[in-house]
Amino acid sequence: MSTIVNRRDLDFLLYETLGLDDLLKNERFADYDKESIDAIFDLSQSISEDVFQPFAAKLDANEPVFIDGEVEIIPEVREALNAYREAGLFMTGYDAEIGGMQLPLMAHQAINGMFVCANPAVSSYVFLTQGAANMLNACGSQALRDKYLPKMLEGDWFGTMCLSEPQAGSSLADIRTKAEKQDDGSYKITGTKMWISAGDHELTDNIIHMVLAKIPGAPAGVKGISLFLVPKRRVNDDGSIGESNNIALAGLNHKMGQRGTTNCLLNFGESGDTIGYLVGGENQGLANMFHMMNEARIAVGMGATVMGLGGFLYSLDYARNRPQGRHLTNKDPESPMVMISEHADVKRLLMSQKANVEGALALMYYSAKLLDEQKIAESEEQRNRVTLLLELLTPICKSWPSEFCLEANKHAIQILGGYGYTREYPVERIYRDNRLNHIHEGTHAIHGLDILGRKVRMAGGAALQALAAEITSTITEAAIIPQLQGHCADLGAAMKKVETTLLLVSQEKDPTLALANATIFLDAMGHVVIAWMWLKQAVAAHNGLDGAAKADVAFYEGKLAACRFFFTYELPKAMTQFNLVGQVDDTCYGLSQEQFIGV
Amino acid sequence: MSTIVNRRDLDFLLYETLGLDDLLKNERFADYDKESIDAIFDLSQSISEDVFQPFAAKLDANEPVFIDGEVEIIPEVREALNAYREAGLFMTGYDAEIGGMQLPLMAHQAINGMFVCANPAVSSYVFLTQGAANMLNACGSQALRDKYLPKMLEGDWFGTMCLSEPQAGSSLADIRTKAEKQDDGSYKITGTKMWISAGDHELTDNIIHMVLAKIPGAPAGVKGISLFLVPKRRVNDDGSIGESNNIALAGLNHKMGQRGTTNCLLNFGESGDTIGYLVGGENQGLANMFHMMNEARIAVGMGATVMGLGGFLYSLDYARNRPQGRHLTNKDPESPMVMISEHADVKRLLMSQKANVEGALALMYYSAKLLDEQKIAESEEQRNRVTLLLELLTPICKSWPSEFCLEANKHAIQILGGYGYTREYPVERIYRDNRLNHIHEGTHAIHGLDILGRKVRMAGGAALQALAAEITSTITEAAIIPQLQGHCADLGAAMKKVETTLLLVSQEKDPTLALANATIFLDAMGHVVIAWMWLKQAVAAHNGLDGAAKADVAFYEGKLAACRFFFTYELPKAMTQFNLVGQVDDTCYGLSQEQFIGV
Repeated sequence: MSTIVNRRDLDFLLYETLGLDDLLKNERFADYDKESIDAIFDLSQSISEDVFQPFAAKLDANEPVFIDGEVEIIPEVREALNAYREAGLFMTGYDAEIGGMQLPLMAHQAINGMFVCANPAVSSYVFLTQGAANMLNACGSQALRDKYLPKMLEGDWFGTMCLSEPQAGSSLADIRTKAEKQDDGSYKITGTKMWISAGDHELTDNIIHMVLAKIPGAPAGVKGISLFLVPKRRVNDDGSIGESNNIALAGLNHKMGQRGTTNCLLNFGESGDTIGYLVGGENQGLANMFHMMNEARIAVGMGATVMGLGGFLYSLDYARNRPQGRHLTNKDPESPMVMISEHADVKRLLMSQKANVEGALALMYYSAKLLDEQKIAESEEQRNRVTLLLELLTPICKSWPSEFCLEANKHAIQILGGYGYTREYPVERIYRDNRLNHIHEGTHAIHGLDILGRKVRMAGGAALQALAAEITSTITEAAIIPQLQGHCADLGAAMKKVETTLLLVSQEKDPTLALANATIFLDAMGHVVIAWMWLKQAVAAHNGLDGAAKADVAFYEGKLAACRFFFTYELPKAMTQFNLVGQVDDTCYGLSQEQFIGV
Repeated sequence: MSTIVNRRDLDFLLYETLGLDDLLKNERFADYDKESIDAIFDLSQSISEDVFQPFAAKLDANEPVFIDGEVEIIPEVREALNAYREAGLFMTGYDAEIGGMQLPLMAHQAINGMFVCANPAVSSYVFLTQGAANMLNACGSQALRDKYLPKMLEGDWFGTMCLSEPQAGSSLADIRTKAEKQDDGSYKITGTKMWISAGDHELTDNIIHMVLAKIPGAPAGVKGISLFLVPKRRVNDDGSIGESNNIALAGLNHKMGQRGTTNCLLNFGESGDTIGYLVGGENQGLANMFHMMNEARIAVGMGATVMGLGGFLYSLDYARNRPQGRHLTNKDPESPMVMISEHADVKRLLMSQKANVEGALALMYYSAKLLDEQKIAESEEQRNRVTLLLELLTPICKSWPSEFCLEANKHAIQILGGYGYTREYPVERIYRDNRLNHIHEGTHAIHGLDILGRKVRMAGGAALQALAAEITSTITEAAIIPQLQGHCADLGAAMKKVETTLLLVSQEKDPTLALANATIFLDAMGHVVIAWMWLKQAVAAHNGLDGAAKADVAFYEGKLAACRFFFTYELPKAMTQFNLVGQVDDTCYGLSQEQFIGV
């Protein structure tokens, strides 16, 4: 069985649950139908399984090294990226007007998922490039786009995003990288950037960095940040590669996981001039960067989700083939052992993975659908509504899988026992890979502050109202199915609980205390959203059962069971956490430094 | 600050909370007082900090390798173990009658904790040896003890336990290693053992394996298992080392963490005779092995706990010294940044670590005290009561820290952000080290079955009654302190909930379904026990506050806050989980194989 994608589930989520077929009726996607999309999925699956997946463990064990100022990477990375490029897959997500394939982003998301699951470290080179290209396309001048975009779109040059500095990670207000305007309108960039994924390598002839920096005299803090395109190697007017742009690789960070993506400390303008070009307006850098960041945040969530999927599928396959022990009621040691998938606790560990992973997958495709709907909205009102939903869901998309699909990976290790803990099996690597997702593209805490401090109240609460309307609509649909009525009541109660919790929080006068448990709210709100995704899936599964083939019966019953699992085992935890958030407890907030250990 | 022990807290737990001073009045410990124990703590702390801790990262990055059938380990391991041996620390835990120091096991536990926290991979060599020696001392013949024990006690020879085989991990009933009796009364051992920690190395002249095997004709299953002492190198009658005993190292497992402890696949009797000696009676192997296993299980829990402690102390120190961002209400980007320990979510992540780690530490010392009380009990009734408590608490001691101090390590990484995820900082290594603790010495699931299927009902429920009586006694003590009365009510309600949950579970006629959520019960029951440990600490802190010095005031207030945190943030989660267990839900139990993914 494939350990990177469950195609039956992909069909179920995209078409039966989330209505990709309806989306395909829009003229934007006139070139596509299910058959043509399936063909692209087939191609993607075979390249990811045949080319990306086989060396994921080797790349983890042989991470890029820094030798004489250059990066050495095992050759399989280049070969895999070439195969991806040659198959035309760099173009799946872009609009036709810039030469892209203009696939529905739902399908693009699914393709990305296969590659990340197969080999996350290699896939990062692709996605960072696509993000940088999208940002350049959205914000860059015609001249910059003409010069740099085509090479990036084709994947001939890769891209990065350079935000953090050693002294400024979460606190972008404090970046120090400087951009001084030259007579020709370009800028001299000086400073140090930290944690730059894919920041240096020789996989492509050039690397296009998207760099946040401050122009002297700009306002303090985030209001004075501008965005610059800074190539690793200068590009001549005819598009050929020129001399070095003097970006020095000062070191590679050695990460716990995702080791194959170089993670760099870069010095700009240290050994000679580093020239950059303003993208968008002066001091508009942060807003422009967020074109890339929101996309990146959903991509991080998708990454975390498919890492969960990889662990789930692998541990399921293992559990079905590993004999160990007997049923508890069988006291005869001479009877044959059963497969561990027969043991109740292993079933629970598998189901918990399924519930978290397939719940998160549904949310990822749903979010991609919202991105598609943004593009085809027929009115400003419709577009606003979709945008509000996206804004509210983005912190959940990024954070919930980072927490709960990491938990799934923990369960995958547990199922393999001692084997799971060794590097001869992939599940420990996936667990290590996944741990990063809580940190990059905004930490868990930052997304908590984002959702509770801003998103639930934005536009007078319109985002939350839009979400509530969507959830109510699903409840209405599900409520006519007797076996789902209990879940409908539970989800309705959970939404009420969100409301009362927010009311309690809003009554707190100290704004910092009001947000002190924002991270807990974020996780709990994510549970409500995932429960909704499961109710959606349960409706689709119930409908599918009608006249289904035998194999499909098991599939749909599994979906209904997973929905029941989520509502029985998971949603009550969120209710407990809402109770806590509603207390606006000051236990941690009120602690003095000395109280932690007495000194 | 030390990142391996908080000596102020150690004093608080041992003396102020758990009454080591009372224990010291017993004649068994006549050689010791607080001052002399502190001197041993000082010595232990300095060796663990100066000799063990400095190369923990180097050992992780340079794990033992298998070259030409032999193991190569970096020289620091031998040097550290020599320093430990020369300080006489191998003898801390043994009784005086075999030449040991006969320290209270509470103090022995604390010493072990420092070394494991400093360098878990090296410490394992010590503790496996001590476990094997204890088992030999308890079950071996006089002749075997005379020949092997002195060298093991001194740490001149190391020891192991060999239970698992490639096809038999959790299911010991299915081991295949064979022991055939020879004319001289010894046995020829043939078979393969897997996951043998410290199974081969050249750190000592000999390795004494304690091996489970079956004598031909023995009953099937666990009833036919015997225990054998099998030296790596044969020992002549004069005690000198003889020829090889033909135990072949077939391979090393490459683990995610705890990499410095060799983990071996061993073949017995493959290239020549491997001779073993029966320890205890024929077919009594499993019972005898459990002399070592229970001790090992508590040691695993202590290991998981101090790994949590290491992450907590390191991330606290980091948080106090890393400037990043400003208070939420400060919108002036030109004002100086604050240390991240000022941010509410960082405080929460620190407090969550403190609550889990110091709660677990209290349980570890409490369990050690029960082991001490077993030895000094003045009546059979008293000893029985203590033994029942220990039996009930052992699965919690082993499992709760494995789950919740691993969670603490996850938080430690989060506090360090991107830095925490790199191998330049210790917290990611500790997280990897800790993940193993859920698996070895009985998986989480096995301990769940143990507690719900056996321990809560053993001796007609006497163990649970003994625990309830202890908890009630703490509640009575705490109830006179106004600020603790709410916690008393909560803990009382939690114990009632345990009762009603067990009643609901006992009404289920299908014994497998009744135990299907045993792991969830184990975690929730652990929460109740840790809440009790926090109430104990809160009483001690409240009493300590009376006339305390300024530094102590902060310490005691921190303890009271941590107690409040555990009751407010953690105990309600257990109540939710008891509700779930009481439902005897069959969602996972009833799943067919096909339902997981439709095939």
